[in-house]
Amino acid sequence: MELALKHLDTHLQAFVEELKAFVAFPSVSTDPAYEEPLTLCRLFLEEHLRQRGLTARELETGGIPALFAEAPGPPGAPTVLIYGHYDVQPARSEDGWSSDPFTLTETDGRWVARGVSDNKGPAMALIKAVECCLEGEGLPVGVKFLLEGEEEIGSKHLEGCILKHGELLQADSVLISDSLWVAPATPSLCYGLRGIVYAYITVPGPAVDLHSGIHGGVVANPHVRLAHLLATIAAPDGSVAVDGFYDQVRPLSEAEREQFAQVPLDLAAYRERLGVEELLVEEKVAVLARRWVEPTFEVHGITGGYTGPGAKTIVPAFAEAKVSMRLVPDQEPEALFAALVDHVACHCPEAAVTLESAAAPFVADTAGPHYQAARRAMRVGFGAEPLLIREGGSIPAALWLKEHLGVPVVLMPICAVDDNPHSPNEKFEPSHFEGGVRAFIAYLHELARMGPS
Amino acid sequence: MELALKHLDTHLQAFVEELKAFVAFPSVSTDPAYEEPLTLCRLFLEEHLRQRGLTARELETGGIPALFAEAPGPPGAPTVLIYGHYDVQPARSEDGWSSDPFTLTETDGRWVARGVSDNKGPAMALIKAVECCLEGEGLPVGVKFLLEGEEEIGSKHLEGCILKHGELLQADSVLISDSLWVAPATPSLCYGLRGIVYAYITVPGPAVDLHSGIHGGVVANPHVRLAHLLATIAAPDGSVAVDGFYDQVRPLSEAEREQFAQVPLDLAAYRERLGVEELLVEEKVAVLARRWVEPTFEVHGITGGYTGPGAKTIVPAFAEAKVSMRLVPDQEPEALFAALVDHVACHCPEAAVTLESAAAPFVADTAGPHYQAARRAMRVGFGAEPLLIREGGSIPAALWLKEHLGVPVVLMPICAVDDNPHSPNEKFEPSHFEGGVRAFIAYLHELARMGPS
Repeated sequence: MELALKHLDTHLQAFVEELKAFVAFPSVSTDPAYEEPLTLCRLFLEEHLRQRGLTARELETGGIPALFAEAPGPPGAPTVLIYGHYDVQPARSEDGWSSDPFTLTETDGRWVARGVSDNKGPAMALIKAVECCLEGEGLPVGVKFLLEGEEEIGSKHLEGCILKHGELLQADSVLISDSLWVAPATPSLCYGLRGIVYAYITVPGPAVDLHSGIHGGVVANPHVRLAHLLATIAAPDGSVAVDGFYDQVRPLSEAEREQFAQVPLDLAAYRERLGVEELLVEEKVAVLARRWVEPTFEVHGITGGYTGPGAKTIVPAFAEAKVSMRLVPDQEPEALFAALVDHVACHCPEAAVTLESAAAPFVADTAGPHYQAARRAMRVGFGAEPLLIREGGSIPAALWLKEHLGVPVVLMPICAVDDNPHSPNEKFEPSHFEGGVRAFIAYLHELARMGPS
Repeated sequence: MELALKHLDTHLQAFVEELKAFVAFPSVSTDPAYEEPLTLCRLFLEEHLRQRGLTARELETGGIPALFAEAPGPPGAPTVLIYGHYDVQPARSEDGWSSDPFTLTETDGRWVARGVSDNKGPAMALIKAVECCLEGEGLPVGVKFLLEGEEEIGSKHLEGCILKHGELLQADSVLISDSLWVAPATPSLCYGLRGIVYAYITVPGPAVDLHSGIHGGVVANPHVRLAHLLATIAAPDGSVAVDGFYDQVRPLSEAEREQFAQVPLDLAAYRERLGVEELLVEEKVAVLARRWVEPTFEVHGITGGYTGPGAKTIVPAFAEAKVSMRLVPDQEPEALFAALVDHVACHCPEAAVTLESAAAPFVADTAGPHYQAARRAMRVGFGAEPLLIREGGSIPAALWLKEHLGVPVVLMPICAVDDNPHSPNEKFEPSHFEGGVRAFIAYLHELARMGPS
């Protein structure tokens, strides 16, 4: 792989320019207003992959299309399916960005832009690793890419797409790089993800917003009713009162407790980074357990009534909460959504609950050869032994690819702990980009040594 | 006043065109983005009044300027100060408008536009009544106009302006037309208004919106905390649990009960008009009491987190409720705001309460000659005896002008019960505009007969 690594060294600046072009598309999937930049972003990627010698084409999903690309390996070599996504979270300058969210801006030696860490930086590093192999000794394994456009909206159509294109996507293993290291300068391999149920809870009100002076006092205020309902669901300490919510949650095992204890997490620094004076739990293992193996109920925002600047005096026509539950083994999305619906029906019969998306939790098998291969590759990329960690976020694709293709899935994150995905000033480290390309080149060669599964 | 009425008949179509031009300015006071149209609207009015022979000038308030204009009456005649406002509530097409909110559109014989009823239609009718007198027999009384630009944001700077310009504004009485009739085809005179305290309740969260997968479970969700707090303040039935909230509320008197019983309010039609299946109380006198002489706590909207279309998975950096309390005799705004602050400090110490604006409730003296004059004028304008009613909304100017000028204030509404002020598809009836001009012409002549107070 010497020539491949040399290509990386000589072309790094060009790779950065390509990443710049990639993040310049505001490929926000949740808001239909961004349909055009999403499409342009996908076309950019498709052309980019073709120019590097891969065959590439769109995959219909029923929603925002995915992109599929492939390049063959040597005869008899295994094939790896690489999953990533080209859509990003919303970003508005007024949320607190220090530079334009869709212009890759170097600040204090870091690249700041929406999506640069989640997931365009890692996706570009994976593409560049393949390019380096192609320009060097040739690909040691067959490579397929599945690049999705709906990850940030719960991968709503991906499972159907995987089922429909099972043959096309078939591979010997799956590689995903779409999460964070657990602590500063601590290369990590991830083996567990929380699932998610995202839903809208809507309390109806009058036909239109009403003058609250004229009619206030005789018409129920939907925001007040929603507040009462939300208060019955979640306590201020984060615990959830939905019937049966914790029934399927596995208790923390001794092995997990020991493993979590080894994570170098400085709580004072963590609090400072988040900008909070206190956490809901204040002991390291408990903090990691809350984030990795315990479920949550979160409210992400509330619509209805007046949310512009200043005052407006109305009884709102409705109040709607955007909410999600993060799920852990052995919770099932269908059962938890049904429990939420029952709870709402019981406490606020006039409210409606609408499902946005759902995904089950995921746990990888770390005992097999793939995680061993990934360990060695991370050492090549970052010069240190990676830590085995879990992750509180959700990547629905991980579980579906594992189950429907029936092959091992490896989660090989290259993002730093403070990359701020989903937040203003999301960033990505140049050294993680370069180390990532190196680690991925090494991983493809490791896979070649393993042979077909 | 024959010539004045004749001018109305021959110029009605021109008046309508002038009203059209007036509502075309999106003079939204709550949102700084509308500063320019607000200014242009004020300049339009100033020029309009000058062209009709009044002297007109801006009054500095420390906020959005008010407009002052005057024209002398015959020697020895009394002077009336006419108060109105040129600012309007926000309006977005997507809230459910059937036509552009800032284009006066005739639909089913009614004029639809933001502000056409609240307060541009009545304000224009008052100006046209003065014009008719000037073009007819001459003004029977001296007239002063005080046209405010901050009524929809609680008249934040008006009291200071009244105190500063007491001499300029001095008159023998005040006339305000900025509310609704109580029922269809039921001319009404209003003698009572609720007060208001408008405030923001803010629960802080992390420094920025955080990825709720990564950090969810260890950081308190500010929307959940706000929900718990709001649930301690107001019950789903509209009752308020703030300590001492009802202490100063006068019980409904027998006289009021009898008077309310005479109001022709059809509850089935009222429910249908509001688009609700049930009201919080279901008996006519109780409904009017709730709207007119009982206080409320309302939530108007909640900001913080993600309120755009679709899903976003974050722990919000803050949650803020826009709330107001409507006050009735003998509640005092300062005391009620302090009670709210105490309640919040007790139930959610990390939350902050910020005052936006406040005004005390208002009750007019209906026994004096002014309300008798207004009764006769309403008969001239609308051909029927007006009903004496109260109103649940707030017009801070009413109380301040009464107290600081020390003269009677008359509330002479000309808007229909279903004009939908503050709602989408706000409208104004052409027949109310014409009848209003007629009633105001008659009222100016009634005042002349009364002589100086």
